[in-house]
This record gives sequence, structure tokens and C-alpha cells, in this order.
Amino acid sequence: MSHRLPRIQLLLTGNELMSGDTIDSNSALIARRLGELGLPVARKVTLGDDAGALERELREMANNADFLLVNGGLGPTVDDLTAEILARAAGVPLSEHPEALAHLETWCQRRQLPLNHANRKQAMLPAGADVVANPIGSAVGFALSLGSCRVVCTPGVPGELTAMLDDILVDLQQRWGLQGKRHILRLQTFGLGESTAQQMIADACPDWPPEVELGFRAGAPQLELKLAVDRSEYLPLRQRCLEQLESLFGDHIIGEGDASLASRVLELLAGRGETLTTAESCTGGRIASLLTQVPGSSAAFHAGFVTYHNTIKQRVLGVSEESLQRWGAVSEAVVREMALGALERASANYAIAVSGVAGPDGGSPDKPVGTVWLAWGSADDLKTRCLHWPVERTLFQTMVAAAGLDAIRRMLLGLPEDSRYFRQRKTSG
Amino acid sequence: MSHRLPRIQLLLTGNELMSGDTIDSNSALIARRLGELGLPVARKVTLGDDAGALERELREMANNADFLLVNGGLGPTVDDLTAEILARAAGVPLSEHPEALAHLETWCQRRQLPLNHANRKQAMLPAGADVVANPIGSAVGFALSLGSCRVVCTPGVPGELTAMLDDILVDLQQRWGLQGKRHILRLQTFGLGESTAQQMIADACPDWPPEVELGFRAGAPQLELKLAVDRSEYLPLRQRCLEQLESLFGDHIIGEGDASLASRVLELLAGRGETLTTAESCTGGRIASLLTQVPGSSAAFHAGFVTYHNTIKQRVLGVSEESLQRWGAVSEAVVREMALGALERASANYAIAVSGVAGPDGGSPDKPVGTVWLAWGSADDLKTRCLHWPVERTLFQTMVAAAGLDAIRRMLLGLPEDSRYFRQRKTSG
Repeated sequence: MSHRLPRIQLLLTGNELMSGDTIDSNSALIARRLGELGLPVARKVTLGDDAGALERELREMANNADFLLVNGGLGPTVDDLTAEILARAAGVPLSEHPEALAHLETWCQRRQLPLNHANRKQAMLPAGADVVANPIGSAVGFALSLGSCRVVCTPGVPGELTAMLDDILVDLQQRWGLQGKRHILRLQTFGLGESTAQQMIADACPDWPPEVELGFRAGAPQLELKLAVDRSEYLPLRQRCLEQLESLFGDHIIGEGDASLASRVLELLAGRGETLTTAESCTGGRIASLLTQVPGSSAAFHAGFVTYHNTIKQRVLGVSEESLQRWGAVSEAVVREMALGALERASANYAIAVSGVAGPDGGSPDKPVGTVWLAWGSADDLKTRCLHWPVERTLFQTMVAAAGLDAIRRMLLGLPEDSRYFRQRKTSG
Repeated sequence: MSHRLPRIQLLLTGNELMSGDTIDSNSALIARRLGELGLPVARKVTLGDDAGALERELREMANNADFLLVNGGLGPTVDDLTAEILARAAGVPLSEHPEALAHLETWCQRRQLPLNHANRKQAMLPAGADVVANPIGSAVGFALSLGSCRVVCTPGVPGELTAMLDDILVDLQQRWGLQGKRHILRLQTFGLGESTAQQMIADACPDWPPEVELGFRAGAPQLELKLAVDRSEYLPLRQRCLEQLESLFGDHIIGEGDASLASRVLELLAGRGETLTTAESCTGGRIASLLTQVPGSSAAFHAGFVTYHNTIKQRVLGVSEESLQRWGAVSEAVVREMALGALERASANYAIAVSGVAGPDGGSPDKPVGTVWLAWGSADDLKTRCLHWPVERTLFQTMVAAAGLDAIRRMLLGLPEDSRYFRQRKTSG
């Protein structure tokens, strides 16, 4: 049992990774899973399907690592070189592995496919290699020691890699006498930029304890904060840090884990036995789609309306001709009437209505591209806001959808409606 | 002027890339842009913000490359080490670069920010380095020769990198006496898997010319095929290959370039002055959202209905109580009535209606999770189909939305409705 941490490297292979046709998400997945065990990745190398370059790299990496995870190159085609390269580097022949062959036979049988020559290649492993089970795909993984380095080869298909990682990590922990998991808490926030959040923490928490690692993961529209400690004795310390963040970011925090604005809103509604409806113009169904991506959303979301055209706003939601004529489709009066129309037609407790100029065309001097009116709330308590996001069309739709969902979240929680991003994005309109 | 191609390597730096908190899209961007010039990337290495490891790697990569692009580590914080490392590797001091300083002063002035100490660090470049202009951010890029290798350092912020790549690539081409662009044609398809497409081409085109490079980029739901030639004299050859693919994949081809199912359907409708409406249950607004992400979609898409709940199907779309009782929400009768209701209420020419079991709950023995009924067409010519995709909820919604859009595309083009994936996914139901 060693208590030095293993030096871990990743070797990623595939022409599609070198050409830029595929964005590598596998190495991030591997790194996150290792990170949960407190194990850092020291170095990653990515190469195309070139036997000579792969063999050189594999030998050199194995000389400088305790654990080398190879990803890619296990497929049935001639481009898939990993087994051959590892056999060469280890100085052993390739031979048909009975366990790998049995796996392939079962795999083909289930799919009523013949076991062809190309598939059969996937049972040829370096002699002496251990099989790593692949519960999904045809290609088993395999592991072999090169000197003092354990080399584990995995398929490039993300779903197959994911399904195999648990076994690989348990084996890694056992070999190194490592125990337990890192204690990671993830906080989802909306309405804060990464640099703003970093600066706020630096200013407010100058004595942040080094035992609690703080990480950020910026996405549109959410920013994730991660608090990690290596030992359970630091959990009370992490709790104190969490409380500091909660008092600092307060109502910008959506929830823990994988909480999203949509899932949080649905959860709050389900807890109250209430429902939400949507009346969307510029977001064109995005809000409804975000809600219905959440399993079980049917409990609190029954109906959504996409009313892109003015006549549809009138006919489907009962928006008045007069408001459209007088104020235009992107106006407080119209989003208010859209919300009220949707509430009535869906018999819902709450509505989100949006109408704006997503661009690239359709802007005017007083309503430039990026302008949006939002209405949200119940028939008795309907709020409105004009915001401005002069960004590319799809990002605009993402941010407006998020702002609408967050407005409802705040209302359901009795939080102030005037969050940081509203103050930034408010227009004089 | 050399006619050997330069050997290009990438060195990516940043703890966020090693922890998996950030998925690296920069290297794919760089590789695609280089690929357009016919220049392959030979090797990528990714490291955290560790000065010793970075310096070792930089030296070694420079020894084995003609052009080394370093990405990341140009920021204002102490973690940002690139300038320091390159200076050390080159054996030169860091010194304040007047052009970089002037850029920083202008950058701060425009934002009415003081030029602080942290920013000022970004003007400290290896002595003798050339500045690479950054039209967006505070950090300029810089380039220096290490032996025979040209090392170019760029910021990790994707927008800044993108804005700088043109200059960098022009300089690279000039240094190496390279001319012109690669001629790339991208074809978008739906309903074909990557391995199926590869096999079909291998079988039908055994004499595929080596001058026409064929690439695949698998996405859900589309598969992109790429035909690239290095010289304009090969364009007629590429044209012949294109014609072979067209006869092979025929109606699975959506279009060229960035064509998507949604954009193609909208284009076909706009050309006829006709409109489409949607009545969505299990896809929950996804089809409407895909359509309205396309700029100008308002010309052909006026209204969409998300009718998740049975009472809403009745009240908003006029689906009959009897059909719901007798056949259930996931049935041919109900999608037919949904489509007809939407057509009438939206005064649209065509409708797509879907009702299915997205899961993870809600399945039954005769309608398991993954079952979906689609209706599409006009009031006079309404088609229906039952399909089965037993996959994860979000992917199910993606595939069903694509199938609905493709059904309309086929109808508008007068193509057979019975495409390959319909045959595979059809149920006995």
C-alpha cells in the first residue's frame, strides 16, 4: 500500500480529434471522475491514428506515469491500432482472447448479427492483457502493465467509456491502496459571471481555507461553483465555506448538484400542487422545451403556446389588436396580454410570457436587436420587465428563457425580483 | 519557400483543462482552421499551470515542431505562466513591450478602468517577441522563434483566440510559402449512421480517388460528410464524388454547408409561401424551438402548441374525449386530431404532431418507453407513423423532433416517406 498518489497520464487517439471534427469530451469526463477520488491528471497527449507516433508516445508516457489511460482506437477498422501498439510496446504477440471473443459472440447474437471478420479483430488483444468489461459496445477494454506503469485501454465512444469507468477506477484505487471519495459539493447559480463571482469571494473571504478547494464551471446560462475537500474531517470546514457563499450569493443560488432553473421551478410548483404555462414569441418554444426535458415535468407543466406571428397572438391568446397597433408586438401591454391569455387557456397558476427582437433582423432605433419584454406571475400578481441582451440569436434565446424561469423561481420563493443581471440588463424602455 | 508542410503541434495549458471543468473546444477550432489550409496538426499536449512541466514540454515540443501554437496562460493572474516560460526557454528576459502596453492602455481607457498592476503584467513579454494583435481582450498574443520552431502564444478565451487566428494563419502561410485554401464541401444528412454510411461508400465506390479526402462528423441527429481537395484542379474530381454520394444517399441528404432539417424545411416553405405549425406532446416545444432558432423563421412558422396534458389537448387543440379514452394519448387517432386542430387554429398549410412516451416513467407493455406516434402533412393529406426509440429522454426528444421535421421535408420535396430510419424504427403498433 503506497500513500504517494499515482502519476496519471491520458493518451487520446483518433484522427477526428486531430482534425477538429470531434471535440474531445472524454478526457474531461475521465478527469472529473478521477478528481472525485482526489486524483489529478498530470498530462494529456492527443495523437492521430499513426502507428509509429503512437508506439513512441505510449512507450515514453509509460516511462513517466504510474497509470496511463488510453482512449480510442478499439474499433473494428484498420485505423484502430491500440491493441497492436500496446502489444508491440510490451513485446508480446496479439492473440485471440477467449473472454473478449465470448463477449463479441453474445453481443452479435443479441443483435442478430453475424460475427464478421472486422468484429473478430476486436477479440485480438495483447497476450496477457486483462479484459475490462464493456457493458454496452462490442469492443472490450484491456489492461496490461508496461514496466511499473499500468496501461488501461478504453473505447472512444463516450457512452461506452462512461459505462466502464467505475470498474477501472475501483481497480486503480485497489492497486494503489486508495480509499474513499473526495467530498464534492456543487452549487448551481444564475445571474453571476465567473470573474464577478471570483472577485466577490476574493473580497469577502480573504481567509478562505486551503483545505476547501473552490472551482468554477461557467456555462450559459448557469455558473457552477464547486467546493471539494479530501477528507471527511474537513466537512465542517466546507460547511462554513458553503454558508459564506450562501450569504454572499444568496438568491443567485438555484440549488445543489445538477439543479437547473427549469428543474427547480418544476420542483417548487410540484411541492405546491401548482402549474405553469408559457407564452413565447422570441424564445419560440425554448422555455417549454427546457421544462419538458425534465423527467416528470408533466405534473406542473400542461400547456405552452408559441405565438410567433401577431395574428396568432390575437387568435390563440386573445391579445388585442389595439395593443399590437399602438405599442407593437415587443411591448409591456402585449406580453401582459399574452400572459393573461395563456393563464386562462391553460387554467394555470403562473405564466411566463416573452416577446422580443432576437435578430439578426427586425431591430429598430427604439427597440434594437436584443430588446425583450417579459411578463411573469399569476393573474393577480403579474410583473413585467424590459431587458436588453445584444448577443447572437441562440444565446439571446438561452438567456431570455433563463431570465423568465428565474423570475418565476424568485416569485415562488418570495425573493426580490430585482437580481443583479436584471439591474445590468434593464433598459430605459 | 519550402514545399514540405510544416510540422505543427499544439500545447494547451490550464488547470481547468486538466480537472475536466472545461471541455477544450479551442484545439478543435484551431485544427479545423488549419485543416482548411490543408495543414494537419501532428500532436497536442495538455498540461496544468505548472511552470516546471510547462518549460520542459515547451522545449521538447519546439525541438520536434516547425510551428508550435501555445494556447492559454496569458491572463493577468499568477497562474498565467506562458510569457515567463517562453522567456526562460528562449534564454531571454521578460521586458515591458511598448506595443502591448499601448494596447492595454487603450483597452482600459475604453472601459474607463484604471490600468492596474495585474493588467500591467500582460505587457511583460519575452524580449524580442513579436506582438499578435488581440482585437477583443486585454492580453496580446506573442510569437518568438525557438531554434527553427516558430512559437505563437494565444489566449485561452475562445472569442479572443478566434479573433486572432486569421493573422496567425496568414503569417504561417507566408513563412512557409503556402498558398490558398483547401476546397471543402460539407454535406448534411439525416437517417444514416456513420458506420452504415462508411460501409455503403466502401461497397459502392471501391475506386474512390485518394485526391478527394472523405470525412465524417457524427452528431445527433445529423451526420455530416466532408469532401476536401487540396487543389482547384481536383474540383471536377470532387464533383464526380459528390454525384456518387448523391446517388448513393439520395433523399437522406438535407443540403450543403450548415443546412439543418429545420432550416431546410423553413427554406422550402418560404419558397412556396406556405406555413407550418406544431402540436407537441412528448417533444414539449423542441420542434418549435429548433425552427425558431433559425433567423427569419417567422416567415413560415407562426404558431406552435405544446399540449402536454390531456385536458389541454382537448381544450387547446380540440382532440376528442372519446379518442383519448378509447386509444390513449399516444395513439394514431390523437396525433391526427392534434395535427388537424393545430392546422385549423394556426391557419397553417402543414402541421407536425407528436405524442409519445419520453420516459423514464409512463411506459406500459403495449406502449413502452420510446414509443411515439407522429402525424404530419396538410388537412387533405395527413400521414401517420408509429416509431420506437428506446433511448434516454433528451436524445429521444431530439430524434423524434428530427423525424417530424424530416417527414415534412420529404413531403415538401415529393420524396418517399419511408426512409431508412423509419423502416428500422417502425413498430408493429
